[in-house]
Amino acid sequence: MSNPVRIAPRSGVAFGLSKGQTLTVIDPDGCQVADLLAFAAKDVREVISNGRTFDYEETLRLTTGNTLWSNRSRRLLTITADSVGCHDFLLTPCSKATFRHFYPDKPVHRGCFGNLAEALAPWGVVEDDIPVAFNCFMNVPVAADGAISVEPPPSKAGDSISLRAEEDLIIGLTACSAYASNGGSFKPIDYRIE
Amino acid sequence: MSNPVRIAPRSGVAFGLSKGQTLTVIDPDGCQVADLLAFAAKDVREVISNGRTFDYEETLRLTTGNTLWSNRSRRLLTITADSVGCHDFLLTPCSKATFRHFYPDKPVHRGCFGNLAEALAPWGVVEDDIPVAFNCFMNVPVAADGAISVEPPPSKAGDSISLRAEEDLIIGLTACSAYASNGGSFKPIDYRIE
Repeated sequence: MSNPVRIAPRSGVAFGLSKGQTLTVIDPDGCQVADLLAFAAKDVREVISNGRTFDYEETLRLTTGNTLWSNRSRRLLTITADSVGCHDFLLTPCSKATFRHFYPDKPVHRGCFGNLAEALAPWGVVEDDIPVAFNCFMNVPVAADGAISVEPPPSKAGDSISLRAEEDLIIGLTACSAYASNGGSFKPIDYRIE
Repeated sequence: MSNPVRIAPRSGVAFGLSKGQTLTVIDPDGCQVADLLAFAAKDVREVISNGRTFDYEETLRLTTGNTLWSNRSRRLLTITADSVGCHDFLLTPCSKATFRHFYPDKPVHRGCFGNLAEALAPWGVVEDDIPVAFNCFMNVPVAADGAISVEPPPSKAGDSISLRAEEDLIIGLTACSAYASNGGSFKPIDYRIE
């Protein structure tokens, strides 16, 4: 098994993932979130869609066996292993605007949105093409009345989720920059491709 | 008060809505869904975003007082009246692909997605720019385990929702074409601009 690659706290990367390869996202220290995006390599206007995924998977709680579908109704990633079972596909990547809104007394950070935009720009992805990310390990309970909140992730050190590429993909992946989503700490994220 | 405009069953329209104007979407016969999209008139790459709206409104159940936010974190529409209190912002417009998936024994229809794409094309909107719509009157309960289902709308004949434009907008609006979302019937939708 290859050594994992480390994503520094509050940063992001982008890389190719070939059809059939498996990406494993690891929370090395526990209680951290990784925002994951997947674009079709042959046309980055095709991208994972929370709405299409909720349509076809018929659940908000995605785990082993579920697929992340694209805006063009094609399968892009299938979850093949998951030691946490708690991820979010409702909320957008944190950004300068969300920092100003939620943390008005704290320094503004470009957040996962800014990190993804920079990392994905060389692949031809522009800011408006960045949709809701699949937020690995993010804990967003939905109350009976529809109210949502952001709670600390339940992931422990070494927990992971694995996803198999169903097409040739460009992946964007971050170590989350927001306070609420990771319990107030900024930690790295590791990943491995097999 | 102006007479309402009627959208024929299984069709869609697009029109401008100026800042400060109020759009009222009416279910004239009851138990019907209208898919609503709103784009910034000055740049249609800015569009309502379910994820940004869930971020800022902190609920999945949007009603009077809630705002529909754009992918650029700006307010596009504010709900000013709502006689139903049940709408969906999780699921994508029905399309040829969703018809094949959910109704394999029924004729394929281009659905709200195809109707929106045709109606919005003259405004410079391409298919990949069509995100999750705000689905007026659509009934998508979320179970405690995250499972979602599509149930008949609770709207009665004459029920309506009103939304005030916070920017100059291009609106896309449909009378829903899918079987499950409107209880198996295809009915018109009315709207009024004030």
